[in-house]
Amino acid sequence: MSATASAELKSTGLEGLVAGKTTIASVMQDQLVYRGYTIDDLSERATFEEVAFLLLVGHKPSPAELAAFKKDIVAERTLPDLVVKLIKDTAKLPNTVPMDTLRSAISVLAHLDPDCQDNSPAAELRKSKRLLAKIPTIIGHMQNVIDGRDIVKPDNTLDHAANLLWMMSGKKPSAEYARVIDVSLILYAEHDFNASTFTGRVIAATLSDMHGAVTGAIAALKGPLHGGANEQAMEMLKELNADMKGGMDVEQWMKQAFAEKKKLMGFGHRVYKRGDHRAPILHALGREIAQKQGKESLHWFEIGEQMMAIMERDKQIYPNVDFPCGLTYFVMGIPVPQYTPIFVASRITGWCAHIMEQHENNRLIRPIAEYVGEGIRKW
Amino acid sequence: MSATASAELKSTGLEGLVAGKTTIASVMQDQLVYRGYTIDDLSERATFEEVAFLLLVGHKPSPAELAAFKKDIVAERTLPDLVVKLIKDTAKLPNTVPMDTLRSAISVLAHLDPDCQDNSPAAELRKSKRLLAKIPTIIGHMQNVIDGRDIVKPDNTLDHAANLLWMMSGKKPSAEYARVIDVSLILYAEHDFNASTFTGRVIAATLSDMHGAVTGAIAALKGPLHGGANEQAMEMLKELNADMKGGMDVEQWMKQAFAEKKKLMGFGHRVYKRGDHRAPILHALGREIAQKQGKESLHWFEIGEQMMAIMERDKQIYPNVDFPCGLTYFVMGIPVPQYTPIFVASRITGWCAHIMEQHENNRLIRPIAEYVGEGIRKW
Repeated sequence: MSATASAELKSTGLEGLVAGKTTIASVMQDQLVYRGYTIDDLSERATFEEVAFLLLVGHKPSPAELAAFKKDIVAERTLPDLVVKLIKDTAKLPNTVPMDTLRSAISVLAHLDPDCQDNSPAAELRKSKRLLAKIPTIIGHMQNVIDGRDIVKPDNTLDHAANLLWMMSGKKPSAEYARVIDVSLILYAEHDFNASTFTGRVIAATLSDMHGAVTGAIAALKGPLHGGANEQAMEMLKELNADMKGGMDVEQWMKQAFAEKKKLMGFGHRVYKRGDHRAPILHALGREIAQKQGKESLHWFEIGEQMMAIMERDKQIYPNVDFPCGLTYFVMGIPVPQYTPIFVASRITGWCAHIMEQHENNRLIRPIAEYVGEGIRKW
Repeated sequence: MSATASAELKSTGLEGLVAGKTTIASVMQDQLVYRGYTIDDLSERATFEEVAFLLLVGHKPSPAELAAFKKDIVAERTLPDLVVKLIKDTAKLPNTVPMDTLRSAISVLAHLDPDCQDNSPAAELRKSKRLLAKIPTIIGHMQNVIDGRDIVKPDNTLDHAANLLWMMSGKKPSAEYARVIDVSLILYAEHDFNASTFTGRVIAATLSDMHGAVTGAIAALKGPLHGGANEQAMEMLKELNADMKGGMDVEQWMKQAFAEKKKLMGFGHRVYKRGDHRAPILHALGREIAQKQGKESLHWFEIGEQMMAIMERDKQIYPNVDFPCGLTYFVMGIPVPQYTPIFVASRITGWCAHIMEQHENNRLIRPIAEYVGEGIRKW
C-alpha cells in the first residue's frame, strides 16, 4: 500500500456543485432537456441527425439546413489511410479494447485535420462534423478487423444509425433496428456536466484544441462508473445467466450480490435519484425487438426486469439508461465491447457543443486541493 | 456567432474551490512543497530521479531503492516499433505540433502495455515507470524526425535529463546543461490540482485507465493558459525582439501591449498571487548559462528582465515558471515546440501520482451545470 492510501482522502466528487453555466442541456421536471426540447419529444419525433444539428448549431434545423448538414456528414465519413492502418495494427491486440483504439484513432485524426490548431467557432463546427461523421467508420472498421472481415465502406445512401450498423456487420439493417439505434443515439447525445463532458471542458479551458479535448473525453467515458457501464451491465447479466444455469435464481443471486457488496452496474445515477427517464424509453424499444425475436431474446429482458424489481424493492435504486442499452444492443447482436464506442458516436455531439461553449466563454478551470500530507521537512 | 455566445456564460473556473484532498503537493508559506519537501530544498539537493521516486512511491528513496528505480527506468526507455512508426508518420505533418504527436504516442503505447487494463497499485506503478522512461524517447525521436536526423537511441549511461538532451540532438550535453534541465524537471514535476492533473483525476475517477488519464492530461497541458505558456512566452519575446529591431524599445512595446489588452504569456498564476517561487530559481540558472555564452544570449534575459520590471511596476503581476523556462530552454538551443513536451517529461510523475491517489480513494468527479438556456418547448 502506498503512502497515499487513506479513507479520509475520498472526496465528494463535486457532487451537486455548480461548476459553470450552460445553454445546452439540463434535467428539468425530472426530464432530460436538450436546448429546451424534452427527451420524450425528441426520441419520438426527431432523428439523431436533427438532434446533432440542434446540439452543435443551437436550433432546430430547417429542412434545407438539415439536408446540407446530412450532406456534409456523409461527405466526411471516410478515414485517412494513416487511421485505417492504425486500426488494423491495434484493434486485435490482446490488451486493447475498442474504446482504446477509438481514443488513439481520434488523437491521430487530429494530425490530418486542416483545422486542428484553429479554435474559431467556424473551424470548431467543421471539426465537430468531421468527428461526428468519422466515429461510426472507426467503430465499423474496428469490428471488421476483429471479425476478420474485409473493411466495409460507408454507404452514402444510409443515414447515420443505419450506416453504423451496416459498417459494423456488412449487413443492411432493418428499418426497426436502425430506428432503435437512432433513438439510443438521441438518448445518449448529451447530459450537461457528466464526467466526460466535464473532462472535455477542463481540457478546452486551457485553450487546447477540440481533438485533444475529445480524446480526453473518450478516455473518461471508458470508465465503468461512466459510459463503460453499458458494457458492464451486460457482462453482469451474462454472469447472472451463467449462475442461473448452475441452479441459482435471480433472488438468490441478488441476495448474494448484496451480501458481497458487489457493485451492480447500470443502476443509480449521480443526477437522477428517482430513476433515469431515458431508461424506460430504451427498455420498451429493446423489449419489443426481443419479443419479436422470441423466447431466447426475451429471457434476457425478463432476468433484467427481475433484477430491476429487486433493486427497487430492496434498495430503491433504479436503472439508468446503460441498463436497457446493454440489453437492447445485446439482443440486436452488437458485440459488447462496442457498446461504449457507440455511446461515443452519439455523445460526440454533446462534447463538441460543450467545447465550443467553453471556448466562446472561456476561463481556465483550475480548482485547488486540500493538502493533508507531510509537514515541511528537510531532504 | 452561435446561440451559446454570451458573456454571462463565463464561469469562475472553480477558482479557489477545494475539489479534493491530496498528500502529494501543496503551496505552503508561499513555497511549493512535494510530500513535505520544499522546492528550494529539492532543486538544490535532489535529482529529478529522486523527486520522481518521491512523488510516485511516496517517500525519499534509500540509495538501494534509487538504484533499482533508475535501473527500471533505463530498461524501459525504448519504444515499440508501432510507436516509432507513428512518430515518423506524424511528427512532420503540417498541422501537427509535438504536443499532439506526443499525445497520440502515449495513447498508442497503451495498446502494447501488458498492464493497460489493470488499475491495481502495483500495475499502476509499473505503468508510471514505463511512461516516465519512454516520454524522453518520444520527444527525442520527434525532434530527430523534424530535423531529418537518424533516430538517436537512448544512452543507458546517461541520467534522465542528460539522456533527453542527447536523444533530442545527438550531442552529449555538458554537465551544466544536464543539471539545468534536471532542475527544470524538478520544478515542473507537480503542482496539486492544476488543469492537466485535474483532467487526469476526472478521467481516472470514472475508473478508466492510467494511459487514458495521461493522454487527456497531455491534451490539457498543451493549452496556452497552462503548459503551452512556456512556448508562448518565448514566442512573445521573439516578437518583442523583432519589434525592437524595428526601432521600438521595451517600454513602448509594453505600453502598446497594455493598450491592446494583449495577453502577456508567462505572467501571473491562479495560485501564486505574489509571484511563483519557482521562477527565480530557474531564472538564475538560465541567466548563468546565458552569461557564459555571451552578449547574444544575455540579450534575451535582459529584454525579459525589462519586461518583468515593467509588469511588476505597472500591473503588479509576476512571472511564473514558464517565463524563465522559455528563456532558459531558448539559450540552450532547444526548439520552442518541444518546451511543453519537456514539461510533460516532468509532470508525468505528478500526474501518475495523482491518478494512483485517485484510484486508491475513488469517487466519481461529476459536478452539475446551471442551465441558462431555452425553457421547455415543443419540437
